[in-house]
Amino acid sequence: MTKRIKLVIEYDGTQYAGWQVQPNAVTVQETIEGALKMLTRADIRIHGAGRTDAGVHALRQTAHFDTDASIPPENFAAALNTQLPPDIRIRSSEEVADTFHARFSAKGKTYQYAIYNFPVASAVKRLNTCHVREPLDVSAMQATARRFIGTHDFSAFCASNTDVEDKVRNVTRAEITADLPEILFTVSGNGFLYNMVRIMAGTLIEAGRHKISPEQTGEILAGKDRTKAPYTAPAHGLTLVSVLYDGVNGNAQ
Amino acid sequence: MTKRIKLVIEYDGTQYAGWQVQPNAVTVQETIEGALKMLTRADIRIHGAGRTDAGVHALRQTAHFDTDASIPPENFAAALNTQLPPDIRIRSSEEVADTFHARFSAKGKTYQYAIYNFPVASAVKRLNTCHVREPLDVSAMQATARRFIGTHDFSAFCASNTDVEDKVRNVTRAEITADLPEILFTVSGNGFLYNMVRIMAGTLIEAGRHKISPEQTGEILAGKDRTKAPYTAPAHGLTLVSVLYDGVNGNAQ
Repeated sequence: MTKRIKLVIEYDGTQYAGWQVQPNAVTVQETIEGALKMLTRADIRIHGAGRTDAGVHALRQTAHFDTDASIPPENFAAALNTQLPPDIRIRSSEEVADTFHARFSAKGKTYQYAIYNFPVASAVKRLNTCHVREPLDVSAMQATARRFIGTHDFSAFCASNTDVEDKVRNVTRAEITADLPEILFTVSGNGFLYNMVRIMAGTLIEAGRHKISPEQTGEILAGKDRTKAPYTAPAHGLTLVSVLYDGVNGNAQ
Repeated sequence: MTKRIKLVIEYDGTQYAGWQVQPNAVTVQETIEGALKMLTRADIRIHGAGRTDAGVHALRQTAHFDTDASIPPENFAAALNTQLPPDIRIRSSEEVADTFHARFSAKGKTYQYAIYNFPVASAVKRLNTCHVREPLDVSAMQATARRFIGTHDFSAFCASNTDVEDKVRNVTRAEITADLPEILFTVSGNGFLYNMVRIMAGTLIEAGRHKISPEQTGEILAGKDRTKAPYTAPAHGLTLVSVLYDGVNGNAQ
């Protein structure tokens, strides 16, 4: 009998060309699909909640797949981990209803963007933080982050090569916390456009440099013009923290 | 005129066979000496405060060297960083008195040992934490850590292949803090024997598993017999945090 299995996945994105399968590049999705094939001898397609870019990390990415294999659902995590490289770990596996879909059932996501604000980059944290040399004004970043909260058309904060029609999203949390030299941007919402968090992070860095004010950020948001928003911050500072679902079988872990 | 220069150095030890120069292996010391040669065209020997093992990291390792080069002392940091790989960063450089010695002037050091206590290892933190699957009793670890504080003969907590005569050291801080699933052991002292922190960390992990009590730890310490102490915890969980010096030119940074 076919079962639907939900996976919660942590990965260090440094060595991968992102989540999604693509030609001539090693991705997280295909690496997990390869491990599933080793276990089940079947070609199984997994569906992730979000397609993280090359270099982006995840603490609790979520995915689902269907299988006829007789492996107990909870055992997929440990069994897959024996086949996976140490920079990808399955935190848990469980059976879910066949109506559950990792992407379409998701009610929200949380991301973090980490900045290392010091004259010299960090050796130890170089693969998980974006290095900014000049001192940033944390208060200005906090005031600017608050502008993102609420329901907005985020067209100005979306990569131009996207084909999504509806660019209205609801951001429920957009917070800057500092434990200097580290500055962390945490953002939660019902959905995110392509590159949205990295363009927000680029805007916040410019706000910290006093190159853009909270008011100007509000105007850029209202103007819906991508060419007006600052640069896209580099991928390696970004981590997908968690994906939120309704119901018992869809609990965020 | 010859100047003595002090460096404060951060490194990710993952790719290195430790600090100290050795044949047929890439070390942190020789990598920095190579960068110094690129800058000055001279063969310069650098002297580190501590010889970290393969896989051990450092946030503020300290070293000194002598040079006739006309480069302003403060500029060595940025100049060396242009020649070094990103997993080694010079945080600062400054001129010090010719009586300063990175190793012999050191008044103390602080280390941290990081444990990731969760059924599944961390993908993102795999290179900086020691994975322990079984739940550890943090209170038992705290009670055991306190036994290390004070002036003791640490013979039982020293690798057997050492030629140091005097094994008495003063430990001023030995603290377990938990932000689960991470457990951090922070230890400061006037000096550390070879593998001392890693044997302490192995003992604390056994204490967290209730395989050894605080009383037994005290007895092992008093017995001075290396064969009685638990295993040496793996290198990659260990970070040299800082080195302490007296005086203006020797301030810990």
